[in-house]
Amino acid sequence: MKIVVDAMGTDDHPAPDVAGAVLAAQAFDETMILVGARSKIQQELDKHDTTGLSIEIVHADDSITMADKPHEVLRGKPQSSMHVGIQLVKNGEADAFVTCGNTGAALAVSMFQLKRIAGVKRPAITAVGELGGHLITVVDVGANTDTRIEWLQQFAMMGNLYSERVLGVKNPRVGLLSNGTEDTKGDVLVREAHPVFETMSFKFAGNVEPKDLFTGNVDVIVTDGYVGNIMLKTYEGTMSALGNILRRELQSDWRSKLGALLLRPYLRKTIRLMDPTQYGGAPLLGVNGVVIIAHGGSTAEVIKNAIGQAKRAVEADVINIIKDGLTTNTAGEGEA
Amino acid sequence: MKIVVDAMGTDDHPAPDVAGAVLAAQAFDETMILVGARSKIQQELDKHDTTGLSIEIVHADDSITMADKPHEVLRGKPQSSMHVGIQLVKNGEADAFVTCGNTGAALAVSMFQLKRIAGVKRPAITAVGELGGHLITVVDVGANTDTRIEWLQQFAMMGNLYSERVLGVKNPRVGLLSNGTEDTKGDVLVREAHPVFETMSFKFAGNVEPKDLFTGNVDVIVTDGYVGNIMLKTYEGTMSALGNILRRELQSDWRSKLGALLLRPYLRKTIRLMDPTQYGGAPLLGVNGVVIIAHGGSTAEVIKNAIGQAKRAVEADVINIIKDGLTTNTAGEGEA
Repeated sequence: MKIVVDAMGTDDHPAPDVAGAVLAAQAFDETMILVGARSKIQQELDKHDTTGLSIEIVHADDSITMADKPHEVLRGKPQSSMHVGIQLVKNGEADAFVTCGNTGAALAVSMFQLKRIAGVKRPAITAVGELGGHLITVVDVGANTDTRIEWLQQFAMMGNLYSERVLGVKNPRVGLLSNGTEDTKGDVLVREAHPVFETMSFKFAGNVEPKDLFTGNVDVIVTDGYVGNIMLKTYEGTMSALGNILRRELQSDWRSKLGALLLRPYLRKTIRLMDPTQYGGAPLLGVNGVVIIAHGGSTAEVIKNAIGQAKRAVEADVINIIKDGLTTNTAGEGEA
Repeated sequence: MKIVVDAMGTDDHPAPDVAGAVLAAQAFDETMILVGARSKIQQELDKHDTTGLSIEIVHADDSITMADKPHEVLRGKPQSSMHVGIQLVKNGEADAFVTCGNTGAALAVSMFQLKRIAGVKRPAITAVGELGGHLITVVDVGANTDTRIEWLQQFAMMGNLYSERVLGVKNPRVGLLSNGTEDTKGDVLVREAHPVFETMSFKFAGNVEPKDLFTGNVDVIVTDGYVGNIMLKTYEGTMSALGNILRRELQSDWRSKLGALLLRPYLRKTIRLMDPTQYGGAPLLGVNGVVIIAHGGSTAEVIKNAIGQAKRAVEADVINIIKDGLTTNTAGEGEA
């Protein structure tokens, strides 16, 4: 298996990206293709012992920044590491693409080059992580706004298949994100989707609330991408604000510093249990190729995990599973 | 001033509710009217020294539970403490109503008895709190779903007036909740509201993200009630999950227990800085009377703060301010 890693993805690229690929090559014994500025990548690679590892470099002249607008990079940066890397997947020269770069751009370039899986109305950014010890899949967290019910049905179907076949969750419980658990709760989309979800082939657990990210009550949470994105960003914003205040408080005097020293391993474990990014990356479901997007601030370890997720997705043959799932689960093939 | 306190509101009623009213009577030197089961209230009151305080009891036969459906209590429990208490405000026998009970029921009973302020299309539950040292007002956090742009305009106007005139924020900066700060971000409601907000009389700060709950970049965040509710519940769910894990970790062995002992004041301060409920209650803006809703798990101190907020709202004459604001800010008076 060959996995393309965008070497120009993270905020501190290419160091963490290259280090992550090296870790992954060691851990998974697969070929890594690093895409980006060849000389910079080589310079980073030289810092690692790559003896016996299968790591290739494919040069790309350009790279996409976090400030780039997704619709501008499509034709504006045709030689970006994302374009070149995803093209390798499209051409069958590689099996998956992993990036820590601009999410909107990764979505746009993936859609432009790989297209959708036949029958998929909309791709979905699928947050996958372990929270409080439970594996949770949330779909969609930002690819779409103003979601239609047929799209939401497909998100549910794709999320269910991903949870079961890639993550190995047995008979996943699929919940519909709402502002209350009663059947009548929700905005108009959720209220209309509820009875439709009752008729679908997955195990529908009814409406769930944001706290179910952490409770383990469900394995998959389905939501409009706008609402899912607000949920994700509220979670991230809360954790970040809390972390800032706590760090400041723990540095205030000798007593707090001593306490912090004693508690370091326990605080680390707490953060790990609350940090879904450790699991590594968000699959972009619905495009015709395995694409995994991870945070711009990812460490080498997180990137290794994202590459691990790409490997599992390829091994599970997720593209064909979704293709088959769509054929058996939904009737319509029309464009939305 | 007379403030009605629902004695049957909290999960542990009437103890915290009564204790909160006693604290408020001491702190604010105003008359408190406790509404609910007279004998139970009297029994609680007897535990406090109420010498020199002005505290009355008004009996109500019934009370509303958290499990009650808002539409069922309207006529199903006409003798509930909410009905009786809000009726006192309607009759002019009291100036404000404060409850820690069922939010949906409080909204329904308020709307049923007090009606809307003339011209208000929809009431809004307005979360008010201090987060990371900044006063923040979020409107709407749950009264409405499938919000129309005219409602959202009024939420912004009411939130702005509340922040300025009741909370004392000078020239509040009003942000529109979105999934990104760019003008083009948002769902269809937000994208359409953005240019309209540019033309309104408040200080529009553009699109903001959930993290701006904590940054102090804006003073008021305006959102559809469904999305606002998801944001609020994600915040609460994250804090709760984190607290659960942290409490468990800090009890794991002698080292963690010692560290926790040392860090107790710093952790308490951190939690206080992250806990908007300390500020006390969410005003229900747009109904024709001052109604403040607080958490079912509120402590006496939080209830005292909620009563303090009711007092400030009455003193600021918030109902007439909103009435005047509507006349000058919006043209339409029609029902939505």
